[in-house]
Amino acid sequence: MGEGDEVSNKQIIFRDFVTGFPKESDMILSCSKIRLKVGEGSKSVLVKNLYLSCDPYLRGRMNRNPPGHIPSFTPGSPIIGYGVSKIIDSGHPDFKEGDLVWGLTRWEEFSLISETDMLIKIKYTDVPLSYYTGLLGMPGLTAYAGFHEVCSPKKGEYVYVSAASGAVGQLVGQFAKLMGCYVIGSAGSDEKVNLLKNKFGYDEAFNYKEEPNLNEALKRYFPEGIDVYFENVGGPMLDAVLLNMRIKGRIAVCGMISQYNLEKPYGVQNLFCLISKRIRMEGFTVIDYDHLYPQFLELTHQYIKEGKIFYVEDTVEGLEKAPAALIGLFTGSNVGKQVVVVAHE
Amino acid sequence: MGEGDEVSNKQIIFRDFVTGFPKESDMILSCSKIRLKVGEGSKSVLVKNLYLSCDPYLRGRMNRNPPGHIPSFTPGSPIIGYGVSKIIDSGHPDFKEGDLVWGLTRWEEFSLISETDMLIKIKYTDVPLSYYTGLLGMPGLTAYAGFHEVCSPKKGEYVYVSAASGAVGQLVGQFAKLMGCYVIGSAGSDEKVNLLKNKFGYDEAFNYKEEPNLNEALKRYFPEGIDVYFENVGGPMLDAVLLNMRIKGRIAVCGMISQYNLEKPYGVQNLFCLISKRIRMEGFTVIDYDHLYPQFLELTHQYIKEGKIFYVEDTVEGLEKAPAALIGLFTGSNVGKQVVVVAHE
Repeated sequence: MGEGDEVSNKQIIFRDFVTGFPKESDMILSCSKIRLKVGEGSKSVLVKNLYLSCDPYLRGRMNRNPPGHIPSFTPGSPIIGYGVSKIIDSGHPDFKEGDLVWGLTRWEEFSLISETDMLIKIKYTDVPLSYYTGLLGMPGLTAYAGFHEVCSPKKGEYVYVSAASGAVGQLVGQFAKLMGCYVIGSAGSDEKVNLLKNKFGYDEAFNYKEEPNLNEALKRYFPEGIDVYFENVGGPMLDAVLLNMRIKGRIAVCGMISQYNLEKPYGVQNLFCLISKRIRMEGFTVIDYDHLYPQFLELTHQYIKEGKIFYVEDTVEGLEKAPAALIGLFTGSNVGKQVVVVAHE
Repeated sequence: MGEGDEVSNKQIIFRDFVTGFPKESDMILSCSKIRLKVGEGSKSVLVKNLYLSCDPYLRGRMNRNPPGHIPSFTPGSPIIGYGVSKIIDSGHPDFKEGDLVWGLTRWEEFSLISETDMLIKIKYTDVPLSYYTGLLGMPGLTAYAGFHEVCSPKKGEYVYVSAASGAVGQLVGQFAKLMGCYVIGSAGSDEKVNLLKNKFGYDEAFNYKEEPNLNEALKRYFPEGIDVYFENVGGPMLDAVLLNMRIKGRIAVCGMISQYNLEKPYGVQNLFCLISKRIRMEGFTVIDYDHLYPQFLELTHQYIKEGKIFYVEDTVEGLEKAPAALIGLFTGSNVGKQVVVVAHE
């Protein structure tokens, strides 16, 4: 087939705005056609999508009125998300056929992308390309910037990470260990707890589902209290953490995955601890730290090469499995970073 | 009478730990005896108490297990709090008879104070001495440090202050105006709202009790959103504020007076806003900013002299009225800083 031919293009279409827990049927596998050529005079690029990233924040985009300033998905259009892609044709001087990129693409086999400023050319190909959906992509930079820039960590401090085996959590714990912190993580299965202790080097880990009283669990694991909490879950865990923070502790609020599908969010009762313990609690999103990507990439790539960082992915093969994979994030069925393989290079 | 004579000493005794809303009867007027002389070899000082400060944080000390690290009051002993006092006798080289001091004293006519490092000699006496329980004392420094050090304010920003006519709030609004912010305050009566607008120079003010929907009220008063929230009340107001914060907004958590008497605190549901809006929410207590007192004092004293700062006190005469005055803070019956006059100099 010639590059300009029209080919079939499987897509995952966002059906309609979601209230409560999302279902696979909120996304529809569809098939359209696409011409594998950028139009004359266009500055767009045409990509073949290789790996797609399942991230908790995508849930927010399914709301009619997402919190904050991220836009909703458009019903009837493909899901938009981070991915790794290969340039097939380019009208843009910065990209050429064969380039590998990561950034914002769509959940389909081929995408015509006009917002090329959301694509970054992949520098190192001596690691699995799928890593650019996680360890070397947005979740990796989230962990790096969130921990180093928001948590103000110091060597020897007590660090707690929830959802600790997820795409971001597994890296936060390792960055914390690399700078000499004492790190404990929680996750929702014994398999994940095992990973935390034996693969990611957490000093301790526990299965929060087996703890009838989170406050008591944290008191047991942190008899001295918590200096830094990397918040991924929200809800009752946050309430328990507040009671166990140390004076001048810091809470970096990266996500609150336990809350995204609730129509009425959990009410956090222990915020008075912020005052007496002088706690700083700060929300952040990775887009404010884009400028750190080059230094993050060099450092993390080096860590990978030296075997100082480990990384676990949970991979499904085939675009048609993407909806189930995304929804699995909210039941915790993924072990490690959830990736969808659309095509091997 | 000679200085070494034993005299009667009226005291307000803390009866027992309090759950829920405090009552006057949780404090008992009692009369003991005291010798108006420091013992031989002691480094204590003997003071005559002039003005006592009613502050919301005192409620925490009435709990059996106060939040954070402030100690409980001792049942059967006098209430401990900030006040303005005159040295009657001194065993300490830094203090001499006749010195005026402010700092931690007890709710009684005369106090023997061994913790002299909690007393500060009063430098300026060309202002009412009672100001050292408020504007020039702990609440003043709280407002100054909380606003300038925790809120990171910038000229032109939108600032919201709750409990805005209280000891701290009235000053926060004025510090904010002095640096060129747009400032709105809320309070619980039309009289207080009037003070905010016509005395303290707030750009706008509203009576939160007359607003059936706080979220809508804030949307009306802050169509562009809130950059800085100085939090004095907590509860439903905080939930409404979170929805109306701007990107990169800051919340300085000084107090949560709406929550202190609840056995089950209100559950705050809108913390997800911290993430999408990248909000920093930081609790603080004034003790971390003691080092700023000298610069704060010079600046604020100058402002008073130049008529750039106004200050409203609500004064009751007589130690026996102190319990009712303290409890009035929690029903909002005070207008301005609540002071108890034990003795005019």
